[in-house]
Amino acid sequence: MANPIKSLIESRVSINYYDTSQQLTDSDIEELISQATRAPSAYNFQNWKFIAVRSPEAKERLKGVCYGQQKVVEAPVTFIICGILEAYKQLPQALKPSVDAGFLDQSVAEGWIDAAKQTHTDNPELQRDEAIRSASLAAMTLMFAAQGMGLATGSMSGFDPRGVAREFQLSAVEVPVIMVTVGYPTSGNWPQKPRRPISEVIQYA
Amino acid sequence: MANPIKSLIESRVSINYYDTSQQLTDSDIEELISQATRAPSAYNFQNWKFIAVRSPEAKERLKGVCYGQQKVVEAPVTFIICGILEAYKQLPQALKPSVDAGFLDQSVAEGWIDAAKQTHTDNPELQRDEAIRSASLAAMTLMFAAQGMGLATGSMSGFDPRGVAREFQLSAVEVPVIMVTVGYPTSGNWPQKPRRPISEVIQYA
Repeated sequence: MANPIKSLIESRVSINYYDTSQQLTDSDIEELISQATRAPSAYNFQNWKFIAVRSPEAKERLKGVCYGQQKVVEAPVTFIICGILEAYKQLPQALKPSVDAGFLDQSVAEGWIDAAKQTHTDNPELQRDEAIRSASLAAMTLMFAAQGMGLATGSMSGFDPRGVAREFQLSAVEVPVIMVTVGYPTSGNWPQKPRRPISEVIQYA
Repeated sequence: MANPIKSLIESRVSINYYDTSQQLTDSDIEELISQATRAPSAYNFQNWKFIAVRSPEAKERLKGVCYGQQKVVEAPVTFIICGILEAYKQLPQALKPSVDAGFLDQSVAEGWIDAAKQTHTDNPELQRDEAIRSASLAAMTLMFAAQGMGLATGSMSGFDPRGVAREFQLSAVEVPVIMVTVGYPTSGNWPQKPRRPISEVIQYA
């Protein structure tokens, strides 16, 4: 039996070359974010923010803080995916849709809010780890969502975080974690590169 | 037209309750890791390690450093997914399969190795960020791979990292980033919880 997910996973590549004649619609972008935000996060923090860079002017500013990488200009959209520090402060708001829908008892939500406050307050390393974890889980989900929509992606961590924060007016709690270019591929892209043997990365216990 | 990826993304839940009568085979575990390692990583670092915890004795040790969470005992396997610091030191080995297969010119590989060395040496924050990013991207890929195989998963960041390092003999460069329980679901699991409105997490530029 065909497993469509396996096929997607095994054919996904980070592309560098986009068809510059094809754009994404607002509806495409919202669909991508709708799916990306289905990723898991600790306590269901949903401590992420997606900046969809698609105007020519913003793309040039982005290129300037991505070491001149041309793909951010050629891709129809590049998402700057940020993780949010101090996520525990946003948790009541993040859990509200689950409480309102009756998926989560108010008392359980309050327990999570207390636990998150206890563990995250005054723990900047945990806050940063959680920001990077959540944003990365959402980024990977976004890449698969895009593939499912017939789009191709490229993930990038090669950027100047301070420059990104300055050019895109990030607040002190917004950490730019990863960028994902999205669009339609053109010729010249690589196939997926082979990986290290599994035996090098697995251990049984 | 049905989009099977969208369906998976929108139905994925972090489950807590597993059918304890069904185990995973070695072949299942290797298939999961094979797919998880297709995730992208900066410079194709592949700076990750997967500890498959499945013996009763190891599960009890794991439970002790996961604040007593019962699911790590009941799930057939829990993967401790580690990111690796000082990834630049491993990069020649990580790129070798790509060079050997003719996917990457030796000169390009050497350029990446130099660039990674320049940017990562003496930069512990970047090394840690990269470890968390890579391990999280691989973890999310593993969760989708599992769904494609008819399995269910649960991701966990609620564990004591020092305790995990001690109990599973992690080296100084191995950072436990996230755990993923994998198995067959039983009754009592939640449906996917609603998310915050997209308008709260998206910004156009």
